[in-house]
Amino acid sequence: VLTPEQIGNVRIVMVRTRNPLNVGASARAMSNFGFLNLRVVQPYDAAFREARSAVDAEPVLTAAVEFQDVAHAIADCSLIVGTTAGGARHTLEPIQRLEAGAEIIRQHLQSGGKVAMLFGSEKVGLSNDDLNHCHLLLRIPTRTEHLSMNLGQSVAISLYELVRDSADTAKAIPLGPRRATAEERDRFLALLLHALSLSNYFPRGTQHSTEQRLRRLLRHVPVTQRDLQEWLGLIRQIVWKLESSQSQTSHPHE
Amino acid sequence: VLTPEQIGNVRIVMVRTRNPLNVGASARAMSNFGFLNLRVVQPYDAAFREARSAVDAEPVLTAAVEFQDVAHAIADCSLIVGTTAGGARHTLEPIQRLEAGAEIIRQHLQSGGKVAMLFGSEKVGLSNDDLNHCHLLLRIPTRTEHLSMNLGQSVAISLYELVRDSADTAKAIPLGPRRATAEERDRFLALLLHALSLSNYFPRGTQHSTEQRLRRLLRHVPVTQRDLQEWLGLIRQIVWKLESSQSQTSHPHE
Repeated sequence: VLTPEQIGNVRIVMVRTRNPLNVGASARAMSNFGFLNLRVVQPYDAAFREARSAVDAEPVLTAAVEFQDVAHAIADCSLIVGTTAGGARHTLEPIQRLEAGAEIIRQHLQSGGKVAMLFGSEKVGLSNDDLNHCHLLLRIPTRTEHLSMNLGQSVAISLYELVRDSADTAKAIPLGPRRATAEERDRFLALLLHALSLSNYFPRGTQHSTEQRLRRLLRHVPVTQRDLQEWLGLIRQIVWKLESSQSQTSHPHE
Repeated sequence: VLTPEQIGNVRIVMVRTRNPLNVGASARAMSNFGFLNLRVVQPYDAAFREARSAVDAEPVLTAAVEFQDVAHAIADCSLIVGTTAGGARHTLEPIQRLEAGAEIIRQHLQSGGKVAMLFGSEKVGLSNDDLNHCHLLLRIPTRTEHLSMNLGQSVAISLYELVRDSADTAKAIPLGPRRATAEERDRFLALLLHALSLSNYFPRGTQHSTEQRLRRLLRHVPVTQRDLQEWLGLIRQIVWKLESSQSQTSHPHE
């Protein structure tokens, strides 16, 4: 896990971005994950600081620094990382998947180095000249049929990968297999509610809140499909009894 | 790693989404990672299928199914997952980080189950009634100062986490520490180019391509800062010699 200081040693460098909304969206994702150092090289639209979609990203956009070329934007960094869709473009370097590349970036940051991450324009990505600056080329593992990602989403995923806590995966508490579907549970819930209604269970006006309470109650019972069938049979029997006794007592009044 | 068939058992359920562009952006991310099953509950704008930002996501948007409530949208699923910014909203369930929750989802898919992932509206997220359907609540690990993410980015990150190959991290090839910065390398490159220029190294008009070639050449030499200083001294000496011999031979002509 990276410290805030190590995260502070990452520069996000957006090269020739066309749409200012994409700069804004990237700035918001940066702020979400604590990356506050944005550098912009030759943006097509100088109005990028006013990007509307950048909710709460004003500090990142205001502090963003503009550069005329990539060389100056990366001058203080010792690891230069290029991102690419990894499609048709020919490069001399092997392109690593984000999962592997992020590990190299983390190690570099943990040894005190500064890292520049380059993101190219929406249309053509990074140029070959841009890529020549890079020690490491990354690609997000999109499928072959649809390689090209939205720019703001690429930035968001790359930063998430850097800060994700791999140790956290082990903390997952597995749920049992062969669980009933939501529809089967709902059928059970509906039958149970019917039985409760017939039993005058509901104080006036509480039907909705009771239904929500029971839904919560049932949700975490690890009901297998077989268990559920037994429960359904059981409640059906109660409902049958309630309904027949009701019809017996109510008939005389009709 | 999930098989395409397991990925096909995930339903992305967008509940009361306001901005059709967010549906479009989510559909594009889904298509990027091979999740093709989109369900939409009470969208504010029925025109979501025409979302402009959804480059190459037409198949996902066209196949999207509209529902009037969450219960019907999740009916065939046996694991219901809610996503939340995990901010002020009170819930009865502990909220797990995405890294841990994704492991539960993968296990469920690998045992043949179907999974619904719920994403709420941009403004208020999922309602308490929506959350009551969920077995599992996830949050993307954004920082406390800026919890709330863009909706399309949340979908993109969640799906990336599901398909990421954790084994791939181990394939990373570490780079050496204490490397020279890009600026130091550039200074060295500039000096080397100067020396080569003085030595008439460049065939006419090849300055730029040679520079690019040398940049590539130098990039992967794991030059430490100390090494670099030695190299700089060495080339400086050559440059001094070249310049002084040039001034000796050119003086007579002035």
